[in-house]
Amino acid sequence: MNIGKLYGIGVGPGDPELLTLKAYKTLREVDMIVAPSSREGKRSLALLTVERIIKERENELIVVEPVFPMTKDQAKLDFYWEKAREEVLEKGKGCESVAFITLGDPSLYSTFYKFLDFFKDEVEEVEIIPGVTSLSACSALAKVPIAEGNEIVSIIPDIKGNDNALRVIQNSDSLIFLKPKNIDEIKNMLANKKAILGVKIGFEDQEMVLGKLTELKQPTHYLSTLIVKKEEKEK
Amino acid sequence: MNIGKLYGIGVGPGDPELLTLKAYKTLREVDMIVAPSSREGKRSLALLTVERIIKERENELIVVEPVFPMTKDQAKLDFYWEKAREEVLEKGKGCESVAFITLGDPSLYSTFYKFLDFFKDEVEEVEIIPGVTSLSACSALAKVPIAEGNEIVSIIPDIKGNDNALRVIQNSDSLIFLKPKNIDEIKNMLANKKAILGVKIGFEDQEMVLGKLTELKQPTHYLSTLIVKKEEKEK
Repeated sequence: MNIGKLYGIGVGPGDPELLTLKAYKTLREVDMIVAPSSREGKRSLALLTVERIIKERENELIVVEPVFPMTKDQAKLDFYWEKAREEVLEKGKGCESVAFITLGDPSLYSTFYKFLDFFKDEVEEVEIIPGVTSLSACSALAKVPIAEGNEIVSIIPDIKGNDNALRVIQNSDSLIFLKPKNIDEIKNMLANKKAILGVKIGFEDQEMVLGKLTELKQPTHYLSTLIVKKEEKEK
Repeated sequence: MNIGKLYGIGVGPGDPELLTLKAYKTLREVDMIVAPSSREGKRSLALLTVERIIKERENELIVVEPVFPMTKDQAKLDFYWEKAREEVLEKGKGCESVAFITLGDPSLYSTFYKFLDFFKDEVEEVEIIPGVTSLSACSALAKVPIAEGNEIVSIIPDIKGNDNALRVIQNSDSLIFLKPKNIDEIKNMLANKKAILGVKIGFEDQEMVLGKLTELKQPTHYLSTLIVKKEEKEK
C-alpha cells in the first residue's frame, strides 16, 4: 500500500493569487489533497487558500483534512498522527499523486516534513514546490523591506525558554517573531524600534499595523508576524 | 512627468513556473517593465525569468534594463542611477503602470526599495507583489527544511567586517549565507555541520550540493545560497 508521488506544496500566505503557477497546475492534477487543520472542526487555512481549485474539481478530487494539533502532549500527538495515517492511507488507496498543502512555504516551520517522515515508507517519490512566505507578504503590504545591504535578519519562533534568542536579538539588524505570544517581553528588549505587525496577512480579514513597537498590542490570532527593524535607514 | 503606478514584483528564484498568479497577471498588463542588470551587456536574470511573457507581448510592452552595478564606488553608483532615471522617465513617458522586477522577493536585499526611493517623486501609487525566495527554492530542491519547531534562523549577507555575525552564528540553529564570498571562513566556524549549497537555483543550469560543510567548494557564481544546519534532527 502506498501513496505514489507526494508533493509538498507551499500555497503562500493565504491570498489565492499568491499561489505559484506550478502549485496551481499541480493542484489541478493531483488525485488527493491533504490539508492540515490545527484543531477538530476547524477549517484548514491552507485549504481555504485553494478553495477555488477544490470547487472546480469537486467530483474528481479526494480531500482529507487531518488534525495536527499544536501541542507538546505526546500522547495526543500520537493519537492524531495515527488517525491521520489511517485516513490518508484509506482514502488515498490507488492514488498516484497526493499533495500535502501548507500555508506559506514548506521550508519554514511547516508540518510537511513531519508528514513526509511519518509516511516515508508509503511514498515512492517526493517533490517540493516552494511558496511565498507570510514574512514576504507582510513586508510587501507594509512597503518596508525586511533587510537591505548587509543587514542580518533573524527569525525567532519563540523567545520563551530560549537563551540564545536574546543574543541573536542583540546582534541582528532585523528581527522576525512568529506567532509572538508575549509581545511585552519583546517590547522590553526592543522598546521604540520600528515594527510591523501583520495578522492573517493574505486573508480577507488581514490586519497590518506599522509603527513603533511600543505602540503595538498583543495580537489575538496565532497567524501573526512581527517584524522589528533596529535601525531606521537614513534617506 | 511621472510613471503612474509602480509595481515591485518578486519573480521568484528563476524558474518561470515559480511566478505567482498575481505576478503573472500583472506582468501581462503593465505598460513597462524595468529589469535590473548587474553590469553592462549582461542580461537581467529577472528578465530571463519572465521571458515568455515578454515574447508574448513583444509589440505592446516597453522593456528597459538599467544597470545597477554591485559596487561601493559612490561616483559609479551615482552615474548609473542617473542614467537609469533618464532611461526610465524617457521611455516611460505616458505609461500608466510600470513593473520593477526583482529575482526572489522584494523584501530581502532587493534593489527595488532603492529604486522606489529614487523615483518616489515620480510615482503616484505603489504596490508590491511578494515572490518565492531562492532560500525556499534551495530548501525545496534539497528536500531539507530550513527550520522546524523552535529553531532560530539567521540570514547573513556578508560575514566580513561584521562583528555581530559571529555571535549570531553561535546562537542560531540554522544559518543562511547569501553569495558567500569566503566559504573557508564559514567552514572554520561551522566545520562538519550539514550544509546545502545552491548555485543558480531555479535556473536551467542550477547546481545543488547536499553534504557536510567541510566537503563543499567555494561557489563561482554570485547567485549562490549556503544553508548550514547546526543540528541533525533525530529521527
